[in-house]
Parts: sequence; structure tokens; C-alpha cells
Amino acid sequence: MEFSAEQIAELVKGEVLGNPEETVTYISKIEDGIPGTLTFLGGEKYQKFLKKTQASIVMISKKLLPENLSGLPVIIVVEDAYVAFNQLLRIYNEMKSRKTGIEPQTQISESAKLGENIYVGSFTYISDNAVVGDNTQIYPQVFIGANVKIGANCKIYAGVKIYDDCIIGNNCVLHSGVVIGADGFGFEPTENGYQKVPQLGNVVLEDDIEVGVNTAIDRATIGSTIIRKGVKLDNLIQVAHNVEIGEHSAMASQSGVAGSSKLGKWNMIGGQAGISGHVKLGDNVAVVAQSGVGQDVEDGKKLFGSPAIDILNFKKSYVYFKNLPELAGRLRDLEKQITKE
Amino acid sequence: MEFSAEQIAELVKGEVLGNPEETVTYISKIEDGIPGTLTFLGGEKYQKFLKKTQASIVMISKKLLPENLSGLPVIIVVEDAYVAFNQLLRIYNEMKSRKTGIEPQTQISESAKLGENIYVGSFTYISDNAVVGDNTQIYPQVFIGANVKIGANCKIYAGVKIYDDCIIGNNCVLHSGVVIGADGFGFEPTENGYQKVPQLGNVVLEDDIEVGVNTAIDRATIGSTIIRKGVKLDNLIQVAHNVEIGEHSAMASQSGVAGSSKLGKWNMIGGQAGISGHVKLGDNVAVVAQSGVGQDVEDGKKLFGSPAIDILNFKKSYVYFKNLPELAGRLRDLEKQITKE
Amino acid sequence: MEFSAEQIAELVKGEVLGNPEETVTYISKIEDGIPGTLTFLGGEKYQKFLKKTQASIVMISKKLLPENLSGLPVIIVVEDAYVAFNQLLRIYNEMKSRKTGIEPQTQISESAKLGENIYVGSFTYISDNAVVGDNTQIYPQVFIGANVKIGANCKIYAGVKIYDDCIIGNNCVLHSGVVIGADGFGFEPTENGYQKVPQLGNVVLEDDIEVGVNTAIDRATIGSTIIRKGVKLDNLIQVAHNVEIGEHSAMASQSGVAGSSKLGKWNMIGGQAGISGHVKLGDNVAVVAQSGVGQDVEDGKKLFGSPAIDILNFKKSYVYFKNLPELAGRLRDLEKQITKE
Repeated sequence: MEFSAEQIAELVKGEVLGNPEETVTYISKIEDGIPGTLTFLGGEKYQKFLKKTQASIVMISKKLLPENLSGLPVIIVVEDAYVAFNQLLRIYNEMKSRKTGIEPQTQISESAKLGENIYVGSFTYISDNAVVGDNTQIYPQVFIGANVKIGANCKIYAGVKIYDDCIIGNNCVLHSGVVIGADGFGFEPTENGYQKVPQLGNVVLEDDIEVGVNTAIDRATIGSTIIRKGVKLDNLIQVAHNVEIGEHSAMASQSGVAGSSKLGKWNMIGGQAGISGHVKLGDNVAVVAQSGVGQDVEDGKKLFGSPAIDILNFKKSYVYFKNLPELAGRLRDLEKQITKE
Repeated sequence: MEFSAEQIAELVKGEVLGNPEETVTYISKIEDGIPGTLTFLGGEKYQKFLKKTQASIVMISKKLLPENLSGLPVIIVVEDAYVAFNQLLRIYNEMKSRKTGIEPQTQISESAKLGENIYVGSFTYISDNAVVGDNTQIYPQVFIGANVKIGANCKIYAGVKIYDDCIIGNNCVLHSGVVIGADGFGFEPTENGYQKVPQLGNVVLEDDIEVGVNTAIDRATIGSTIIRKGVKLDNLIQVAHNVEIGEHSAMASQSGVAGSSKLGKWNMIGGQAGISGHVKLGDNVAVVAQSGVGQDVEDGKKLFGSPAIDILNFKKSYVYFKNLPELAGRLRDLEKQITKE
Repeated sequence: MEFSAEQIAELVKGEVLGNPEETVTYISKIEDGIPGTLTFLGGEKYQKFLKKTQASIVMISKKLLPENLSGLPVIIVVEDAYVAFNQLLRIYNEMKSRKTGIEPQTQISESAKLGENIYVGSFTYISDNAVVGDNTQIYPQVFIGANVKIGANCKIYAGVKIYDDCIIGNNCVLHSGVVIGADGFGFEPTENGYQKVPQLGNVVLEDDIEVGVNTAIDRATIGSTIIRKGVKLDNLIQVAHNVEIGEHSAMASQSGVAGSSKLGKWNMIGGQAGISGHVKLGDNVAVVAQSGVGQDVEDGKKLFGSPAIDILNFKKSYVYFKNLPELAGRLRDLEKQITKE
């Protein structure tokens, strides 16, 4: 697609210096910009490339704008060029891949309510009484259970499965292989084996949530498993029944939270880390990759290790762990000396 | 759905005291019961609510039945009210979501043998010579390979994939994203790269097994990967080729068992724990979350750590690990004192 | 299927000693071979079974060929009987399960380019401008995004999802639930929550790659996430955006590599191990299961622990870790002795 400097400036609320009708069709890095591309100047150390770049349009942070513009490409001045450039890419990406319409070979219940301007791909199954909000895109091979509610502007990628009664907010992105609302892992042992504890609750995702590939979020035994506004979950994550994850928390790939635990706001859980069941983490908690948290955690704590302890303590102890053979040797030396005496 | 006291009593093998035609349409907790609901009294500490509850029917454990029933709701006496209530919910849940019939847009081989009263959802693919037992429900978008045998009363959720030649017993539940029977990870290194070792076996699931979301159970190289009766597997678990998991063992989310290992009966494997290849675990073995088992384990052992050791020993050592800087300090002090002398 | 000695010899480039028209329909172990089967003699300790076996054809390593062939079954002489037998099984397995043709109920874009002799299963979706090479088999319920290129002789199992613009080489095998090219996990924190960093790159798989069940390989932010020739990935693995995995490296189940890290050639990553973001591993690096690598690693190193250190050092330190209570006791004893003095 071709964009003019004027169109771009409008999208990012910037000001054009130069020909507003200059056009670009692709992006480049400032150091190897070529004609017909848009680039940006966000940091001082790239300033030297501004005079040499062959890019047709350069987005510049206000504070880096040079006084003399002669000989420069068309310029778009913005507050922060890095932020504006990313914003533009998001808009472009969204436009580029946007789909609408109901494709052939779908199976949609007559009792389902579909919003305006939505996309439903082939081989997708929408069950009774499901609701899909405006502008939501549902890719092929998705399963949407009975009574599921999905908000507006969502993107549900190919092969996502959402069990009955679950609720998805607005602006949510679910990547392929995500499963929302399967039964929690609840079994009572008896002499003859495990008896299933019925899992009667659901899963609620609030707004602005992104869930990565093959991540599982189980339904509550009773009530709801809740993912609060703005949470970002990476790939292959386990969120067990009755868990609650606080606003704007982020979990890296292959981490997991066991049943009924509550995470506060702005938590950061590292890759392959695990949170035990029935614990409560405060706000702004950070858990290093591969750590295992088995107890309640106060606001702002940073933990490391399995079992996890304060990160500084863990690091200190680990330094000594690596030197244990030497420490033990010194102990043996002392013992010899004292015995001799 | 509406149920009468008489109907409920029959389902849970209880006895009605009061009007057998009293009806309920939903459930409640005894402390906030409202008319038209069923509740239960299972523990002594809730006995005080019996007189006040507005619930229409109360299920009561025999030993908690009061002498004077005047002014009480309709009562159903059972051996253990908690157990009976859960049993009722399971039955109800099963009835509520039960589906039958072959939906449009399926692809079913003419050589497949389908039992009575089954459900096959749209976009499900059933290959040649597959067999599906009576009352089994197969949700949309499931793939069933050639010669696969599935027993009676199973529930195969949306998107499950079962490769050729695998066998699933009766009363099994497979959640979305489960993959049964993919090739085991077997490769021989050569100078030019890895050569695949053909994986010619299959996977056998016995009866009463539940497998969680996106769990993978690989086929054996030769012979069968075997999951014994009553095993419960949580989400995102790896079961490698030629593994055998003993009766009534349970594995928590994101745990894994490497090739050819054998687990005994009633094992409990914690979340994110790993069992190395070619080891043998006895019966009633427990492995704490995130632990790594690299050796054979005797019956009844409880292990912790990576590499895993006896849980008590690990915990003791970990206490000292956390104090290593202090221990090292004391060692330095001693060294100084002795040098001075 | 029935094969003659002559046909088999041709497939494995061996020489027939005896009747070239002898036929077999199945395989057996040499110690319990029965008529109508093929077996092999690969190691000296099985030599004693050669005279007794009832198998109709025996494949023998050249160096184990006896001088006197009287009374023996038909023999096929090869360089290494074990290697040849496996090779034969691979060929047989490939032939047995080989499918061709476009099944009903697919959705294939008119702009897609399909090679010769391919298979496309029902409910598979092939988007605009996708390219599929000759002899490639695509099972049911697969999603192939726009502009995706898939090489020749690939096997894409049921339910695989490949996002737009990704490239798959020749002779690749992708197992069920694999997701190629979903967005990398890139978000910028702002006061109002995380802003998505657009993920504009793709994923490139070179030739001869096998990817296990439910493994996720994310697209690059800009550029490509690259999996080099001959790499083998097990089940439930995470490969983050902008990662590069070198030729012939193998990763075991549930391991993961975080964003922008580069692995060299012939690496071996153990199960549930993790590689942090932005690190570089040399060639022939081995990482033990459950280890966590947070730093660059030189060629040929073998690491263990979380955080990972040299395997020998970790093992030594762990021996002392297990004895920490005893070490601490000895320290206390010394302290008492010295205080007494």
C-alpha cells in the first residue's frame, strides 16, 4: 500500500515539513534507507545518518529536529518518533490483515447473535446463544461454546477453542491453540479411584488481553477464573481453576499458576516459573524465570529460586553454592588443624 | 430444569422426609439458600443454618439429622451429603451438556463403525476402520485416525487429534488440544544429521482416564505407550514414547515423563516436575512441583528438588542453602581465630 | 503388503543370498521369528539365534555373515543390518500411510499454488498466494495463512496452524497442534498498560526439520525467526521471536528459548530447560534437563543447574548441598571446641 506524508502525519498526529504528497510503500532502518521508504530518527546516536539516508520520509522526535532542513528528505515531526513509528506499524498491520464477512462452510447456531462488520472463517463452529461483538475477527477452525460472549474488536486466531459460558471482553487477542474454559483439575480420591469434582464455573477475560499460543485457562469449580484488564500471557501457559490475575500483569512462556491463587496488578512472571495453589501475590511482584513460589508475596517483592526467596538472598546463596566444594575443603583443613593441636 | 425431591432422592439413593413433590430448579449454599433451590448440610459447623435456610430441599448426612423436623424444609437423608451433592452435580452436568446425533459437515469414513446414541460435531474427521463406542460424544473439529478404537461413554472435546491405531477405553475424557499418538522423539545421529527412528507402536488409554488441555501422549517406538485405568492428567503435560503410567496416578500441569519410564500406582507428580527417561517409580510415589527425578524410586517415597532427593533432606538442606552467606562468614571467623592463635 | 527378498534388497542396496522370490508380510525379532516375516542380525550376541529362527528372510551385517549358509533362511547382506532395517521401516511406514488427492470440504484459495501429487485433508484452509510443494501431505483441519510457502515432501499433521508469510522447507514434519508464526511476545509498558509492539517478521524453517506436538515458534518482530536445516524439536517447546536455532540441534520436550537468542550447531537442550533472551550458545553445547541458561556459552560446554553452570561443578556442589546439615553441624562443633579453648 502507498501512503503520503500527509496521511501518515494524520495517523500519528505529526506535522509535515516538506512535500506533503511525497509517498512511501515500505519501511526501512535510517542507516540503510532507500527511496520509497519511511524511516524514523528516535535516538541521538542515529542523528549522523539523517543527512545520508535515501529514505523518502523520516519521522523525527521533536527534540532531535535539526535547524537546517535543506537537502533532507520530507520530515514528519512528532513528540516521540519511536512511539509514533510503532503506533503506525500497529495501525498498518491491523489494516493489512483485517478480514470481514462470513466465509462458506461455517456452522453457526441460529440463536447466536453476531455483531456488525465481523469475520467468521470457514470450519468455525458457533454454538447456541453465543454473542460476538462488532468488528471481531474469528479465524477458521475456531470452536465457540454455548452462551459464550465475545466483545468487540477481538481477534480469535485459527483453532482457538472456547468452552460453554465463558466471557471474553473487548480488544482481546487469542492466538492459535488457546483453550479457554476447560474443566479445572479437580478430583477427590476414593478407594476405587478418583471421583471428578464437577467444574461448574466459567472463565472471564476482561478487556485488552492477549493470550499466546496453546495457553490453557481453566474454568472455575464454582464462580469464575478471572483475567483482569490488560493482562498479557505468552505461549504454553497454564492458568488453573479459580485463579485471578490482576490488571496489567504479564506472564512469560511456559509459566503456570495453580488453583485458586491470586496475582495482583503489574506482576511479571518469568518463563517456566510456577505459582503454587492458594497463594496470594501483591502488586508489582516479579518472579524470575524457573522460580517456584509457594507462599504469599508482598507488594513489590522480587523472587528467585525453587522454592523462591528474595532475589538478592538467592543470588548471594548461589554464589556460595557454586563454591561449596572449596568451603567444605576449608572446613576440613580447620578440623585437621584443631585435631593436631 | 426442574427436579422433585423424589427424583433427586432416587438419583442419590436417599430417603425423602417431607413432601416428595417439592421441586427445585437450582442450587444454593445453606447459609444463603432461597426458595426453589436445593442445598446440603455436610458438616457440623453449618448445622446452625438448617433452621434459617430458605432453600426448598436440604440434603443431610444421616449422622447430622435433627430429631425434631418441624419447621424445616423438605429433607433428603443420605449417608454423606457432600459426596451425594457432588454426585448429583456430576449427573446434572452430564445431562445438561449431553449431545447426540451426527451434525452436518462431518467427514466419516464408510468403513468406520459408530455405536448407538453418539454425538459427532461438525468438521470432525473419522478415518477408515475407526470404531466409536455407544454414548460417546465427539465434539467439532476432532481428528480420529485410521483403526482408532474409542470406547463407550467418552467425551472427546473440540479439536482433539488421535493418530492412527491408538486405543481409548471407556469413560475417558479428552480435553481440547490433546494429541494422542504422535511420533515419539526418536532420532539417530549420523554425520549428515539425525535419522528418524520409525515410531511403529501406538498409545493405549485404559478406562476412566481424563486428559487435560494440550497434553501430548506419544506413540511407542514398538509396542504401546500405556496409560492405566483411572489416571488423571492435567493440562500441557508431556508423556513420551513407551512410557507406562500406573493405575490412579495423577500428574499436575506442565509436568513430563521422558521415554520408556514406568510409573507405579497412585503416584502424584507435581506441576512442572520432570521424570527422566528409562527410570521406574514404585507405587504411591509423590514428586513435588518443579522437581526432577533421574533415578528409580521406591514405593511411598516423597521427593523434592532438581535433581530430586528425599523431601525431608531437601528441605533441611535448603534451609542451610538460604543461610550459606552466614555459614561462610562463621567459617571465615574461625579461620581468623585459629590463624591468630 | 507383501515384499520379495529382491524388492527389499533393492530398497536397502543389499545382496540376496538364496531365493530372491521368497516373500514376507511382516517383521519379527530374530529370537522369535516366524515364517513369512523379515528379521535382522545386527549384533554378535544375537548370532546364536540365526540357526534357529523361523523368519523367512534375515538381513545380516556383512561382518556377521557366516561361512556356511546351508539350512539358513534367505539372507540379505548389507553393510549395517540395524541401519538398513530402520531405513526399510521408514520407507515402509511412509508408503503405508501415504495419502494423495484433495478431499471434499476443503477451503483453498484460487491464488494458492499446489504442487504435484499432494494430499489435502478435509476442513483444511489454504489462504491466498500460499504455495505447497510436490508430494507434500497436509492432513485435515490445518490452517495455512496468506503467502505461506511449504516445500516438497513435507507432512503437516492434523490441526497444524501456520500464520501468514512463514516459510517451510523441504522434508519437514509438523505434528498436530504445532503453531508457526504467531506474534512474538512484545509489549511496551505505558502508564495505561502495555502497548503491543507490532510483530512484522516471519518464521523460516529450513529443510529436514521435525517439530513435535503443540510446539510454538513465534514470528520475528522484524526479520525472521530461523530454524536451521535438520533441527529436531520435541513436544510443547517454546521458540520465541527472533530466535535462531543452528543446524542439527535437538531440543527435548517442554524446553524453551526466549527472544533473540541464538543457538549454534548440534546443540542438545534437555527437557524443561530454558534459555534466556539475548544469549548466544556456541556449537555442540549440551544443557541438562530443567537447567536455566542465562549467559553466552562457548562451544562444547555442558551445563547443569538453574542458573546453569558447568556440569561437573554443579554435580560437585550438589553433593555438598545434600550434606549441608552435616557440614553445618561440623562447623558448630568446631566453634564449640574453639570457644572452650
